[in-house]
Amino acid sequence: MRDKLSMLPSHSPKRVVRAYESLAPIFEFLGQYDKWLADADDSHCDFALGNPQTMPQEEFVSTLQDAAIPQSKDWFAYKMSEPGSRAIVRKSLELLTERAYAAEDIFLTNGATGALLVAMNALIETGDEVIYSNPPWFFYEGMILNSGGVPVAISVDPSTYDIDLDAIDSAITARTRLVIVNSPHNPTGKVYSADTLRQLASILGSASHRFGQRIYLVSDEAYRTVVYDGLEFVSPTNFYRNSIMIYTYGKTLLTPGQRIGYIALSPEIEEREQLRTLIASSQILCGWAMSSALMQHGLSRLQTLTVDVADLQRRRDRLVTGLRECGYEVNSPEGAFYVLPKTPIENDAQFVETLSQHGVFCLPGHIVKMPGHLRMSVTASEEMIERALPIMAAVREGLGT
Amino acid sequence: MRDKLSMLPSHSPKRVVRAYESLAPIFEFLGQYDKWLADADDSHCDFALGNPQTMPQEEFVSTLQDAAIPQSKDWFAYKMSEPGSRAIVRKSLELLTERAYAAEDIFLTNGATGALLVAMNALIETGDEVIYSNPPWFFYEGMILNSGGVPVAISVDPSTYDIDLDAIDSAITARTRLVIVNSPHNPTGKVYSADTLRQLASILGSASHRFGQRIYLVSDEAYRTVVYDGLEFVSPTNFYRNSIMIYTYGKTLLTPGQRIGYIALSPEIEEREQLRTLIASSQILCGWAMSSALMQHGLSRLQTLTVDVADLQRRRDRLVTGLRECGYEVNSPEGAFYVLPKTPIENDAQFVETLSQHGVFCLPGHIVKMPGHLRMSVTASEEMIERALPIMAAVREGLGT
Repeated sequence: MRDKLSMLPSHSPKRVVRAYESLAPIFEFLGQYDKWLADADDSHCDFALGNPQTMPQEEFVSTLQDAAIPQSKDWFAYKMSEPGSRAIVRKSLELLTERAYAAEDIFLTNGATGALLVAMNALIETGDEVIYSNPPWFFYEGMILNSGGVPVAISVDPSTYDIDLDAIDSAITARTRLVIVNSPHNPTGKVYSADTLRQLASILGSASHRFGQRIYLVSDEAYRTVVYDGLEFVSPTNFYRNSIMIYTYGKTLLTPGQRIGYIALSPEIEEREQLRTLIASSQILCGWAMSSALMQHGLSRLQTLTVDVADLQRRRDRLVTGLRECGYEVNSPEGAFYVLPKTPIENDAQFVETLSQHGVFCLPGHIVKMPGHLRMSVTASEEMIERALPIMAAVREGLGT
Repeated sequence: MRDKLSMLPSHSPKRVVRAYESLAPIFEFLGQYDKWLADADDSHCDFALGNPQTMPQEEFVSTLQDAAIPQSKDWFAYKMSEPGSRAIVRKSLELLTERAYAAEDIFLTNGATGALLVAMNALIETGDEVIYSNPPWFFYEGMILNSGGVPVAISVDPSTYDIDLDAIDSAITARTRLVIVNSPHNPTGKVYSADTLRQLASILGSASHRFGQRIYLVSDEAYRTVVYDGLEFVSPTNFYRNSIMIYTYGKTLLTPGQRIGYIALSPEIEEREQLRTLIASSQILCGWAMSSALMQHGLSRLQTLTVDVADLQRRRDRLVTGLRECGYEVNSPEGAFYVLPKTPIENDAQFVETLSQHGVFCLPGHIVKMPGHLRMSVTASEEMIERALPIMAAVREGLGT
């Protein structure tokens, strides 16, 4: 750890130093990944991040081009959450949750990460505890620490990847302020059932009552449109009044570099008007963390577009089946982008490095607290999957495992 | 103040509550301004914010449209500071400062406000003091408080609007961490001279030495391309090694809703590599506060565009002369967008309200700590200026002043 800290200047703020400890392995991997890409030829197979490995949709491109045509002098002026954008989101949430959201409770942000920052900054007092599931999304821990909070990671059931409700219940204290739920879950792909979410809501409600302190459920729904096998996504916000929904169009459109998402406060949330003011303030204080004018102008058309989920499912199936055929132990995700085979050797970093030498780029599991696994994104193309499978078989055999 | 705090939920984080106290007057004004706009007819004259009052440049629009055409599968993938963007900024900084920046010391952000957040988050430890000039830009105080810092506002010389160097020197303590310099200055339009900046650098250097603690100069150069009367902008970073430059294309292009700017670490900055890591970490922790893929793709063309400064200068001249002719006391800004006439009555909020009833929208000075003034943006059109002047004369006369 001394090593990592010497990477920061003397006198760095304590909360940032702590957060950096959490980021450092990701930074290290991103540096390695950049080198792989720089040396890669056309035959490389990229499963490392949830990035597109096929060309963007034509309709996405033409929507941006049309949205760039100014209809008024203030087309590219300062934007907050524009009334038109709020109306579009409101309508989509009514369809999703069968509840009536107020336009004023919707805040357009620069992606889900921007939304998380705004929510955490608004709600975390120094020392407040934030519960989330382990394995976690890359940046929960670092962002909680950076906001002055205390990360409390609760391991999921390793056989089902389901939330451990009893463990969450036991982990709640008088300082618990937020519980982050991420469904479909990155990296495990788990989609939580209505029954699980109802029980979670009951736990949070009881604990809020017991401690006389409101616990918010932050529902990170970045992957909610990417669900397989006819499973139905149910929003965790449906069951608990003090819920704050986080969404991004970046996964659904497979254009994460365009930074548009939102925060939505549940219609029944307590102190709703005050929370509105708090979130609006936080969004400005967080560096005017608004989605760009252009993306808001295009939103009515953008929100009709989606990545081809059936296609993702076919690739998931091919990858899972193919990996099993060559001896990997792997389960089939219910949603999101990621397949998580066990590595034939314990050291996933070393195994990933070996694969990279053969042009197959994967995320080592230890980075998302799943040592002994790979995380492989099915945003990779079919050709990449077909090219990668024999390589993965050969590398595995070469290890004599 | 009790009134304002009741606007936030119980148990809001202390630093956000303090920051909200600073934001509340702006919020109140923005609410009022929205109402004015909603009720306005085509003849309204809008000087209230630095927003465009004329149609966007055609070349800006075509640049966005062309930049939307994907050249690769990862055209809209996650972006950080792309090598191409860094190279463009690097070259422009070499021309501006005659110094060689390292590409790795440039961080593309979602505007200057995003850049400020990233820098403040990276550098402010709880309780650290941050010095800036009074009158200030809207959000310095709130953003410093939100980062856990202590705002220390130093009034400028009211006759020259120049930085008060002695007062800054006296205000520096062992806890001073950042000194923000904003040239050209919003709202006064002051462009600081090389001599002033050299003296400031000497003060900061001595104080850093005296207290054995590095003080950073944060140079907010949002308006650096908007300078009048042949005056030359000199970057405050030229004179002090531990400087961090903040820039946005939003003012130069008059498209603040598109969110592209940057942070640049000075070539001679101490612990440069560690600072890089700190800023890069902070940018991720601050909600992946990157500029969008599209704006980075368009940057090579965007950076050749600029608002017509000669045109702004003509409008500044017409507005200043016209206001003087009808009896307003007003000085002529050296740069930036704002003309600051004294209000004929002390209560600037009341005067602004009266003007608004006649379709002339101005920012009341008290919001930028200049009570008894208006802030009028010369981004208003010529027609707006011509329509507004007789109204401002009549309102003034009607008051019998």
